[in-house]
Amino acid sequence: MEYNVIFQPSGRRGKVEEGKSLLTASHELGVDIEAPCGAHKVCGKCKVKIETGFFEKFGIDSKIENLSPLTEEEKKILKAEELTENYRLACATLIQGDVLIFVPEESRKADQVVLDTGKERVFKLDPAVKNYYVEMTKATLDDHRDDLQRLQDALKAEFGLDNLSIDYFALRELPNVIREQDWKVTASVLYDREIIDVKPGFAQKWYGIGIDVGTTTVAAYLCDLKTGQMLIKDGMMNPQVRYGEDVLSRITYAMMNDDGRDKLHDSIIEGINTLASRMTEKVGLTPNDVVEITLVFNTAMHHCLLNLEPKFMGRAPFAPAISVPFDVKARDLGININKSANIHVLPVEAGFVGPDNVSVLIAEEPYKQDEEVRLLIDIGTNGEIDLGNSKKLLSTSCATGPALEGAQIKFGMRAAPGAIEKLRIDPETLECTYRVIGDEKWHGRGSKGNAKGICGSGIIDMVAEVFKAGIINKTGKMNAKLETDRIRRDENGKLEYVLIYAEDSGIDKDITVTQGDIRAVQLAKSALYVGAKMLMRHLGVDKIDRVTLAGAFGSFIDQESSMVIGMFPDCDLSKVHAVGNAAGDGAQAALLDQGKRIEARDVAASVEFIETAVEHDFQERFAEAMAFPHQVDAFPSIQHILDKIPGYK
Amino acid sequence: MEYNVIFQPSGRRGKVEEGKSLLTASHELGVDIEAPCGAHKVCGKCKVKIETGFFEKFGIDSKIENLSPLTEEEKKILKAEELTENYRLACATLIQGDVLIFVPEESRKADQVVLDTGKERVFKLDPAVKNYYVEMTKATLDDHRDDLQRLQDALKAEFGLDNLSIDYFALRELPNVIREQDWKVTASVLYDREIIDVKPGFAQKWYGIGIDVGTTTVAAYLCDLKTGQMLIKDGMMNPQVRYGEDVLSRITYAMMNDDGRDKLHDSIIEGINTLASRMTEKVGLTPNDVVEITLVFNTAMHHCLLNLEPKFMGRAPFAPAISVPFDVKARDLGININKSANIHVLPVEAGFVGPDNVSVLIAEEPYKQDEEVRLLIDIGTNGEIDLGNSKKLLSTSCATGPALEGAQIKFGMRAAPGAIEKLRIDPETLECTYRVIGDEKWHGRGSKGNAKGICGSGIIDMVAEVFKAGIINKTGKMNAKLETDRIRRDENGKLEYVLIYAEDSGIDKDITVTQGDIRAVQLAKSALYVGAKMLMRHLGVDKIDRVTLAGAFGSFIDQESSMVIGMFPDCDLSKVHAVGNAAGDGAQAALLDQGKRIEARDVAASVEFIETAVEHDFQERFAEAMAFPHQVDAFPSIQHILDKIPGYK
Repeated sequence: MEYNVIFQPSGRRGKVEEGKSLLTASHELGVDIEAPCGAHKVCGKCKVKIETGFFEKFGIDSKIENLSPLTEEEKKILKAEELTENYRLACATLIQGDVLIFVPEESRKADQVVLDTGKERVFKLDPAVKNYYVEMTKATLDDHRDDLQRLQDALKAEFGLDNLSIDYFALRELPNVIREQDWKVTASVLYDREIIDVKPGFAQKWYGIGIDVGTTTVAAYLCDLKTGQMLIKDGMMNPQVRYGEDVLSRITYAMMNDDGRDKLHDSIIEGINTLASRMTEKVGLTPNDVVEITLVFNTAMHHCLLNLEPKFMGRAPFAPAISVPFDVKARDLGININKSANIHVLPVEAGFVGPDNVSVLIAEEPYKQDEEVRLLIDIGTNGEIDLGNSKKLLSTSCATGPALEGAQIKFGMRAAPGAIEKLRIDPETLECTYRVIGDEKWHGRGSKGNAKGICGSGIIDMVAEVFKAGIINKTGKMNAKLETDRIRRDENGKLEYVLIYAEDSGIDKDITVTQGDIRAVQLAKSALYVGAKMLMRHLGVDKIDRVTLAGAFGSFIDQESSMVIGMFPDCDLSKVHAVGNAAGDGAQAALLDQGKRIEARDVAASVEFIETAVEHDFQERFAEAMAFPHQVDAFPSIQHILDKIPGYK
Repeated sequence: MEYNVIFQPSGRRGKVEEGKSLLTASHELGVDIEAPCGAHKVCGKCKVKIETGFFEKFGIDSKIENLSPLTEEEKKILKAEELTENYRLACATLIQGDVLIFVPEESRKADQVVLDTGKERVFKLDPAVKNYYVEMTKATLDDHRDDLQRLQDALKAEFGLDNLSIDYFALRELPNVIREQDWKVTASVLYDREIIDVKPGFAQKWYGIGIDVGTTTVAAYLCDLKTGQMLIKDGMMNPQVRYGEDVLSRITYAMMNDDGRDKLHDSIIEGINTLASRMTEKVGLTPNDVVEITLVFNTAMHHCLLNLEPKFMGRAPFAPAISVPFDVKARDLGININKSANIHVLPVEAGFVGPDNVSVLIAEEPYKQDEEVRLLIDIGTNGEIDLGNSKKLLSTSCATGPALEGAQIKFGMRAAPGAIEKLRIDPETLECTYRVIGDEKWHGRGSKGNAKGICGSGIIDMVAEVFKAGIINKTGKMNAKLETDRIRRDENGKLEYVLIYAEDSGIDKDITVTQGDIRAVQLAKSALYVGAKMLMRHLGVDKIDRVTLAGAFGSFIDQESSMVIGMFPDCDLSKVHAVGNAAGDGAQAALLDQGKRIEARDVAASVEFIETAVEHDFQERFAEAMAFPHQVDAFPSIQHILDKIPGYK
């Protein structure tokens, strides 16, 4: 006998054989219902509601009696009000007549995940580590199988997982774990190949961390691998900073000291361990619950973190030790999470263009875009720039320096509560107003904003605003002649502009912008600008259709400010977007969707690396780009703004 | 043009194209010449001698001029006298005419290895870890390949090795290693799959250790993986002895103490580390030169060494955590050899029949024997017994106790210098003579032999001899009435027989055999006898064609003594052989020939395990077997010896 079964809200319908469960029917009709316990009436996830009555549209009479009677397990799992509302477990309910079933939101299988760290991104939910619940047959004298074989057989029978190996440390506890809840266990399996963790009973909690290890800043994202949800993010200064501010000084440190490599390695590993324990503690977990970490970084940080000899990265021909993506046990790196956890290292592209740029690419996917010529700038101590589309993609890297991350700026700080993230200067009064991270309100003179310093997005605003207000000229030189108390000379006789007076600041000191700060930003923005222009020349284009600004900033960079200082060539302002930490988003994407690892491997192999710093006219072009916004190039998109600047011709 | 090329002493001949090297010619004609450097004129192993003159038999005129001129590399590598004797390097010498070549012994490729630890055994030389020498192309700005890729490409081009991975710790030093000797390296590759070590230049030294971890004794064999030669053997008491003398007491220790498992694990690992550093030091190596270890042990020791929960091994249904063979990194076990070294664990058979018995089987290969019914006894604290042939093979294990390894025997000791290994008692005078390990000479009363104690083979002789001399009767009871000063009562009034008086011993004490010693040996031999008889019943045979006695003894067990005490059922004495530590030999075989690992896996799966201790008549049969040689069963093969025993009817 066959009966009509209809699933709502999807509207999927068809004939299903008598005696099949609603769960089986849902599979046959292409409806995804969650059943993580493998239909063992344990997890209660496959809850559905039986709609009763005659449905004219479908010509069926849906009745409770058309289904098998309520089981003991359902009585235990379903709440009283759910029972009165005709909820059932799809796995426990057998079809004996026509029925119309409503599948509530929470029972529908999540097959995609929405990242909302900066820009909203949608990915497939398909983590490399998955949990599988199985019930094994108990060992007897007649059944000589060992514990592992028993687990492997169950995973094969229930999920078709074949040829599974087991990590040594997961094996050690196996005999105890499988007997703790009567031969029922949940196995965490990496790449459907290796059992890396086994927990007693039905355990659906397993977690991963995506980490973007910048030269200056480390950003980490703890994610639930079951739901794809990012639970918490955290960050810190890269502890390697004490051994050198930029990658070359760290490589030099490693070369000049016998234990240099170990110290660089140990310090960042210690940092990661701090982040892992701090983040898990905040959400009521332990580091042992973390079964995977994805890592992105530039190539030098890649070597320094992994303790690979970095010395040959610092000299031509800049060959890395390894560039393919690879997996290593957390314990081999000294990372204190689950003992059998996996660390996935994203691929290196070429030279100093590392996994962090690959990560930006898999987050932004310019290779899926057909016509538009897109410029992607990832701002960090090493800036990475990509240009192109699905036809051709070029990349380069440039020595931006840490200015845009707050280092080398007198009152610079990383994006953290207390940092100025937005800033405006009135061109008439030369008064400054600003907004601080953690506070929605704008502050100005006489309003205590408790600012402690200024972070990346604030720094870009600050330079753009002093330029727009005529406080600095086209060459970046401060104007001593303006009528305001805010421009003054410091103890060394150098000019500075007071952003916030001590009585309004959070540090009992005036917060100022110095001539040195302006110079540091000029060097940084010039490096980015020239990199972009050189890629345009190589691609043979003279116009950019779209600009995407990425970086680990507190808030999004202001697109107008960034173009006014000349950080990149002219582009329609409405096509300039800041997306937050795209490298961090890519690390999460690779954590939650193993398909992204394949994409990363492919794009790393196909993107063409251009060594722009060796171009014959690099120095000349660099000097031209030091001016605000540029000595030679025109910026039609912001000409109306430039025209209003006092003294700008 | 083609020329006649003849290789001696193999006599292989054929036409070879002009311009090909002698090495290439040898491959074409099926002659194996050593060329570990891959024909790079580096290693000097492919030395051959050019025979000159007209060879009537072959109709060729072999001349030096028929080959390309001597190269600079050959002048450097070949000695002056070799040059005058027309030696050349086969890889550097090109064919330009007819030649007759003699390949000296040392240039022929070793494809088999002869183990000579006890019995001479011949295996194929095919270790799981092999060394490959390659010369890479140097990194340039135009060639963006990373270091690993460069190495992988070279290994693929030269040796056809594809899809090679690299162990993380081998990767760390790769950039330095490949640049140290101008992009020439030797890679150690595990299973032709994973690069586990890379050394600068041409390095053909790599080593492995086969280890037999007995309940009481650990035996280790350091082997050269290049030549297959065993360089040194060493042994020690199993340091776990302090936590329990037998497997059940160790399992109990692990269960009753929170850190019990860790202590058991740590102590044996420390022992292995001691052995590895002691052995390598003695032959001028370091533990870092050791790239692989094979481990055999009984199943309980398997769990205790690997720190797998052993508790369920001690109770029905005796399920092990894992039984398949597996590989684990030395570093994960805490074994201090090469950081990336592999530990290969041989498979468990069933219950207490562990990898040590599998190891005996691959050493002795009874499964390759067609007709003869063979009994294999591996004597240890746990005795393992196999019976059968290629048609069917049964196995069982029995609780022998450590008596035959020297424990529980008043003056027992392990096989080491100073231990009595052979012993005779004159039935007329009741005087004892003996031989000590490390001394060829036989000693008796008045001859200082410096014996410190008595080891396994000596213990079996000792019991057989006191029985044959009538010092003990059929039931094992000592006879107080014999006329000799050697039989006396100890301080507790118990009878004992003095083997060696204090003035002749090496410990300033009389060395004696006590009534307790006799009882301990009776329990051990009875367990082995009953195990063998039960297997005979299961196999349906009443006669054994061949007996092989294995065990980690100082010298071979005397076949007559072992049958006189009734250690196994009657068998033609000429068909009883002692083979030394076959389990240790199997561990070496698996180290030197990876094909043996497949054989081990297959035999572990096919041998049928019989739980003899649960048979209904076990206790009764055990009691009968306590007598010398047996209470009921006849021993026609040694009846003539038994007939001469005073008081034996």
